[in-house]
Amino acid sequence: MDNFIRVAVARDRFAIEHLLRTAGNFTDDESDVALELFDIYCGDGPTAGLQGDYPTLVCERDGRVAGYATIGKTPFTQGTWHLYFIASAANSRRAGIGRDLCAAIADFAKARGGQLLVLETSGRELYGGTRAFYAAVGFVEEGSIADYYSVGDPVVYFVWRF
Amino acid sequence: MDNFIRVAVARDRFAIEHLLRTAGNFTDDESDVALELFDIYCGDGPTAGLQGDYPTLVCERDGRVAGYATIGKTPFTQGTWHLYFIASAANSRRAGIGRDLCAAIADFAKARGGQLLVLETSGRELYGGTRAFYAAVGFVEEGSIADYYSVGDPVVYFVWRF
Repeated sequence: MDNFIRVAVARDRFAIEHLLRTAGNFTDDESDVALELFDIYCGDGPTAGLQGDYPTLVCERDGRVAGYATIGKTPFTQGTWHLYFIASAANSRRAGIGRDLCAAIADFAKARGGQLLVLETSGRELYGGTRAFYAAVGFVEEGSIADYYSVGDPVVYFVWRF
Repeated sequence: MDNFIRVAVARDRFAIEHLLRTAGNFTDDESDVALELFDIYCGDGPTAGLQGDYPTLVCERDGRVAGYATIGKTPFTQGTWHLYFIASAANSRRAGIGRDLCAAIADFAKARGGQLLVLETSGRELYGGTRAFYAAVGFVEEGSIADYYSVGDPVVYFVWRF
């Protein structure tokens, strides 16, 4: 296997920003928030550590950061985690990066008492491939709220039970 | 009507902390996070304004703060808001405080382009009264994830469409 997963460190920020800006499926607003979570996890700014923790894993491939994911223990829950962001390099698709990241996330959460992993994604047709990816990894669609992101764009809740 | 709703100001913090600690339905952990959101909205600490905004309304009754609620525009959505916390004084139940707060929240969100208001609550039997309250206000149960808070304790998503 050519993918190597490790926890992120501060010097990964440039590569992660590049991933987000070039992945093609994140708005500027989403990328900004993703980087804000990364900075809480790895940064030394005023919010570091204050808002809880957002563990971030990166996937190296051929010595470069080719994917990353940010997760977090869900507040007020005993063993629920959220997958907040996951991205892989536009030029490294079909290399199993997303699959390997998800497997590592599950191990990471399980090692800390995690029992389920939840993510929210769009129910729009455009995201059919994304939803098929999550289903292939082990997530199950367990709920939806119509017109959540905007009129005609529902949120879909995916749950992976360990 | 004896209830007067206004936006919170910094000096409401003591009364809000008292509400949370004595309401009887918040864990210490939940109260701490509720105050953290209040401090982001009203405080002058290092996180003020950094993590987005959490508008907070208080309900005065007989000149005292007898209830409060914290809401927020849901990130990445066009017109969705979340109700994060709502509490009323243990000695002022049945005074319409929760109902009046919810009506004011709806007006507040609608005036800012809000189209739906979402909240998450427990599906346990213990919270049957809480869920009946939300249903009476106008919320509809639109989804649920089993074992979310802990084994046997599902999250229920309530949605109020304006």
